[in-house]
Order: sequence, then C-alpha cells, then structure tokens
Amino acid sequence: MTPQAFEHAVRVYWEDTDAGGIVFYANYLKFFERARTEWLRALGIGQQTLREQTGGMFVVSETQVKYLQSAKLDDLLRVTAQLQTSGRASLTIAQQAWRNDQLLCEGTIRIGWVQVQDLKPARIPSSVLERLL
Amino acid sequence: MTPQAFEHAVRVYWEDTDAGGIVFYANYLKFFERARTEWLRALGIGQQTLREQTGGMFVVSETQVKYLQSAKLDDLLRVTAQLQTSGRASLTIAQQAWRNDQLLCEGTIRIGWVQVQDLKPARIPSSVLERLL
Amino acid sequence: MTPQAFEHAVRVYWEDTDAGGIVFYANYLKFFERARTEWLRALGIGQQTLREQTGGMFVVSETQVKYLQSAKLDDLLRVTAQLQTSGRASLTIAQQAWRNDQLLCEGTIRIGWVQVQDLKPARIPSSVLERLL
Amino acid sequence: MTPQAFEHAVRVYWEDTDAGGIVFYANYLKFFERARTEWLRALGIGQQTLREQTGGMFVVSETQVKYLQSAKLDDLLRVTAQLQTSGRASLTIAQQAWRNDQLLCEGTIRIGWVQVQDLKPARIPSSVLERLL
Repeated sequence: MTPQAFEHAVRVYWEDTDAGGIVFYANYLKFFERARTEWLRALGIGQQTLREQTGGMFVVSETQVKYLQSAKLDDLLRVTAQLQTSGRASLTIAQQAWRNDQLLCEGTIRIGWVQVQDLKPARIPSSVLERLL
Repeated sequence: MTPQAFEHAVRVYWEDTDAGGIVFYANYLKFFERARTEWLRALGIGQQTLREQTGGMFVVSETQVKYLQSAKLDDLLRVTAQLQTSGRASLTIAQQAWRNDQLLCEGTIRIGWVQVQDLKPARIPSSVLERLL
Repeated sequence: MTPQAFEHAVRVYWEDTDAGGIVFYANYLKFFERARTEWLRALGIGQQTLREQTGGMFVVSETQVKYLQSAKLDDLLRVTAQLQTSGRASLTIAQQAWRNDQLLCEGTIRIGWVQVQDLKPARIPSSVLERLL
Repeated sequence: MTPQAFEHAVRVYWEDTDAGGIVFYANYLKFFERARTEWLRALGIGQQTLREQTGGMFVVSETQVKYLQSAKLDDLLRVTAQLQTSGRASLTIAQQAWRNDQLLCEGTIRIGWVQVQDLKPARIPSSVLERLL
C-alpha cells in the first residue's frame, strides 16, 4: 500500500512561461521545490528556523526529470512530493506535476544536508529524520 | 577522438543566487540552455529565425543533472555543450559547468523538435541536422 | 470611501531569495503580477482566454516601486492590487506587499492593451472595462 | 559634458521571455542589475569581496522604469549604467536597454548601503565612494 503523496497547488503565471507559449523547463524545478518546502512545513519542518537552530540546510545534489506534456498560462497544477529513500545525509523525493488527470512532468530529486558555513555534507538532524519516517 | 565541447562563459549575478549564498539549483538549467543556444548559434542555427521559417522549435524532454560543487556570486563559469546522440526527432546534449578546473555541475539534456502550433513531435529539419553532424 | 484592495497570498520560497538572504528586488514585480492576475481572474477576466478571443493582451508600460523592508525565506506575504486610474488603452494599478502589519514594498504599475501579433497599442475591450469599473 | 555611460551586452534567452513572445517585464531589472554589477566591477568594486571585507552590501531601495519597446528571443541588447546622484548612504543610477539604436526600456535605480547582518542602512565605505566620483 503506497502512502499518499503530499500535494501542493501551483498556478502558472506569466513569469513561468516562455516565448514557446509554455512553462520554461527549469521552472518545474521551482514548482518541485515549492512542493518539497510545503511538504516539509506540513511535517513541522521549517527550513529558515532549522537553519537558525542547527546551522544546516538541504541542498539539491541530483535531479532526473521527464517532461511529458506542456503547462500553459493560467493552468492550475497539482505538484506532489513523496519520500522515496532516506539515508543519514540525503533523501530522495519523487515528484510529479499534474493538470487534472494528465501527468505533465515527473522526476526524482536527491537532497543532501550541508553545514551552511562551509557547505560540507553532514548528518541530517535526528529531529528532521524522525518527522520524515 | 572526442571533438572538443562548445564553451560559453556565464557570470553569476545576484539573480542567480539564493539565501543559501549559492546558485539556486534550477538556474544551472538556465546556464545550460544559454550554452545550447550559443552552440546552435555558432553552428548557424538561430532559433527565432528557424521558428519563423519552419514553424517548429526545440523543447526539452528529459534532464539528468548532478550538482557537485556550489557556484557563488561573482563566479565566472565555463558552461559546455556537446552533442551526445542524435535521432530524427530528438538530440541528447552533454553539458557541464566549470569554475576554473573544478567541475560544479554536469548533466544530459534531451531536446525534441515540435510544431509550435500544437506542440506535437516532428522531424528535426534536415537543414538543422546537417549542421549538427 | 476607498474600496478595499484585492489581496493575494504569496509565500517566499528559495527561488525568490538571493545571496543577501532576502527577496531579490525584481521578484516583487513577479509577486505584483501574480496579484494582478488573480485580481483580474476574480473579476472574471482570464488572460489566456481573453487572448484567444480578442487577440490582445496587457503589457506593462511603466513601474514605480519603493522597497521599504526586506522579505525573507518562508515569509507569508499579502500582496494587494487596486485600480487607481483607467483609460481607454491603459490602467494604473496600485500594489503593495505586506508581512503582517508591516509594509515591505509598494508601487504603481501601468499596463497597456496591445495586439498580440504586432504589439501595437489598442483599446481595452469593453468587456474588460465593464468588469473593472 | 556628459560622461559616457557604462555599457554591458545582454543576450535574450528563452528564460527571459514569456508567453507574450517578449521579455518579461521584471527581467529588465535583472539586466539592469547585471550592468550595475559590471560597472562596479569595472571600477574595481567587487561586491562579494566588499561584503567579506566590510560586512555591508548594496540593496535596491527604489526603481522607476518605463517600458517603451519589447525585446525578443535572440535579441542582443546594450544595457547602460550611469551614476546620476550620490549621497552618503545611497546612489541613484540611470539605466537604459537598447537594441541597435532603439531605446527599449529606461529607468532610475536607487541603491542604498546596508549592514548584511541586520540590513540597517549605513554609510557607503569611502573606498567605494572614491572610485565612483
């Protein structure tokens, strides 16, 4: 039984589109990041607070994305985030962007925990891991 | 014998960075796109002109990117583009971002040719393929 | 008696911030544009639909913006839009961004109606004006 | 006798355009910021270095921009920056974006000096002012 993915609504504005009349490909990574942030927030994990408390933050270390259909101005998308695997220093999150029942874009994003000061990898704080698992 | 990759210089500005003090991960896809555009331009392929002449354009269909090191404000990057594989309807391009002799980010970008009007896949114009191969 | 301004909630994400740790100044224009779009949508004016029906669209012709305080990652902003003046070919909209009871940024945005094909100024469709006034 | 304005070349890429087929209005502020940064760099003022040395940085406090003509994909723009007025805590810079001999966009940008830590206004370091005047 698959746990249900977290969903976040994203509206497509002028800023997201390009002269092809569709959402610029890099902007799906923004949508994915918004959904991850809201997913973490829903779990009680505020990134700004966490940074002040622990001196660490998540950074993206790897992405794999497939673009299947195009989103357009005024579209309302559902963007999902679902934990796929978790380790001591990184997480992999599966993400999708849907318009109604049409899958537009999907991918996996790997994020690692680093110390803000020197950007060196570190263990994800246990307070974070406990909320994820 | 590997043909040399095309290189395009990219300066990191405020707009490219985020509150982590480093380049926001989605923005490497912008840098990659700039390098692809300049690579095509260097081959005599202007995308705006091509669109007016053929009614078609390239859209990104798949990306795989690894983020190895972080770029910061004022960094000067060398962003490369090199044709990896080419088919009738799509191309795969290997791309990297370097700061001096340090590889920061690398990936492969698959782009497909579509008709502007309905975004349906189509054959890459032979005038384009001839210049690539 | 001042009519109440339209309000739209905007969350600050990583994509909006820069290495100064605050929202990059150009991004308030994105927030303003989102609020204008939602204000028009609330009045029954869909820009994509309008474009398909009339062959016209709004473009920004002038902006005046004051940056008073900085927004940061995870802030939740209220962004307002209020019609200030309207003419046959252009509108001026007063906009503000608030965090709680603190005004962060305010300005006026003039938008003009143009024909999509040649970007020449044209009269705002009466169906649009009727909904605004 | 007017001193000549500093000029910086900006190419228009897909990322800069929107579904109207033209450069998204907020992006001219990015182009202006790039030209200001290169103008400061040409005067020997590196913002990242300055921040590390003085704990201060420039932030934008006010903008006035007129959008006269539209830029499109593949356009090559000349973006200018010229000091208009300077005070102890802020500078006003006149900026323009040109395509060949056609003025597309112009405005004035006021930037103030702040302490990075608390974003409070402060005096511009004398080493900076000496290079500007």
